[in-house]
Amino acid sequence: MPISFEGSAKAYTEYLLFNTKNRRELIRITDKVKEIVRASGIKDGLCLVSAMHLTASVFIQDDEEGLHEDIWEWLEKLAPFRKDYKHHLTGEDNGDAHLKNLLTHLQVVVPVTNGDLDLGPWQEIFYAEYDGQRPKRVIVKVLGIV
Amino acid sequence: MPISFEGSAKAYTEYLLFNTKNRRELIRITDKVKEIVRASGIKDGLCLVSAMHLTASVFIQDDEEGLHEDIWEWLEKLAPFRKDYKHHLTGEDNGDAHLKNLLTHLQVVVPVTNGDLDLGPWQEIFYAEYDGQRPKRVIVKVLGIV
Amino acid sequence: MPISFEGSAKAYTEYLLFNTKNRRELIRITDKVKEIVRASGIKDGLCLVSAMHLTASVFIQDDEEGLHEDIWEWLEKLAPFRKDYKHHLTGEDNGDAHLKNLLTHLQVVVPVTNGDLDLGPWQEIFYAEYDGQRPKRVIVKVLGIV
Repeated sequence: MPISFEGSAKAYTEYLLFNTKNRRELIRITDKVKEIVRASGIKDGLCLVSAMHLTASVFIQDDEEGLHEDIWEWLEKLAPFRKDYKHHLTGEDNGDAHLKNLLTHLQVVVPVTNGDLDLGPWQEIFYAEYDGQRPKRVIVKVLGIV
Repeated sequence: MPISFEGSAKAYTEYLLFNTKNRRELIRITDKVKEIVRASGIKDGLCLVSAMHLTASVFIQDDEEGLHEDIWEWLEKLAPFRKDYKHHLTGEDNGDAHLKNLLTHLQVVVPVTNGDLDLGPWQEIFYAEYDGQRPKRVIVKVLGIV
Repeated sequence: MPISFEGSAKAYTEYLLFNTKNRRELIRITDKVKEIVRASGIKDGLCLVSAMHLTASVFIQDDEEGLHEDIWEWLEKLAPFRKDYKHHLTGEDNGDAHLKNLLTHLQVVVPVTNGDLDLGPWQEIFYAEYDGQRPKRVIVKVLGIV
């Protein structure tokens, strides 16, 4: 059965702040995004959750510890930390974090239905920090029908 | 020439169901998404097509058989099936499917213009199943102007 | 502080054209997308920037030359040019370009706040051409509140 909403359009935006203790961290943010969607009053629409930096990502995966270890091992294999990235000639040492961002994409668009995130079973939203220990932001923008 | 629509906002949602015969399959879903866009009555906007599972993807590529073989070979190389993923300590054996999902992204946002998908030449929407033989869903949500 | 807009909905679309001199190029398009957002008159919403081909990408990264060299080297490692892709039996020689598109994703959704792109520090939008020297298009569609 199709679900259909028509009415007044609204856009609602909040920013999540992160300053991780470790350089690399995986942080579940589903509940925070749900709160923002609820606060928006939007009944149906799209919710963009996007990293505002080049060395972090937002993705949807399972909140399972073993899998998280697999993901970190895999990221390190496909986009390894190396000393000799050309980007490091600028004084940076986070070339791998830029590539990990490219690999896992910076954002997801989460559907909003009946005033809540319309996620499948086990789908959780994560902020993946690849070069932390400094202030970083994620934008959460909900666009839809009130 | 810019294309511009203004008016009443609408959100329209349907779910596609899959239960593939094989563990891994690539299924063209462009026509089904087009039908949903047509049924929505939305003239201009954005159409989110997103896997509701952690072991499948939705992406846009060419409907060419040789390329599909290349894609499967490439996916197996970059995110190989392995017995020793830590995720498998939970009893699962689909760690590779989670990584293939991360690699190819779970979703696309397809533009809708003049009541139809605004796709380029050869662009077709695919559902990529990495761990099938069980019921799975894709959400199609169209948000735009009627 | 949340940012909230309510009102009339609008969708506004333009297409960017590319015909690169080289087969592979990375082109910064942030300013062009900003112009389109300004022309749209949309105050708050989402801006989809999406390649209309299967052998190009749109992504957000840093406008730093050394990093760009790292990205090209990395792309060539993970999705290498090869003569023996099965896709080449059709007469094509761009199998690697299809895989590079899959790896880096074809699109980004950029938030629009207060009539401008809401990008983080150093975030620039790039068109990545993996098989150029022919006419190609990117769609820029802004959906939001006027």
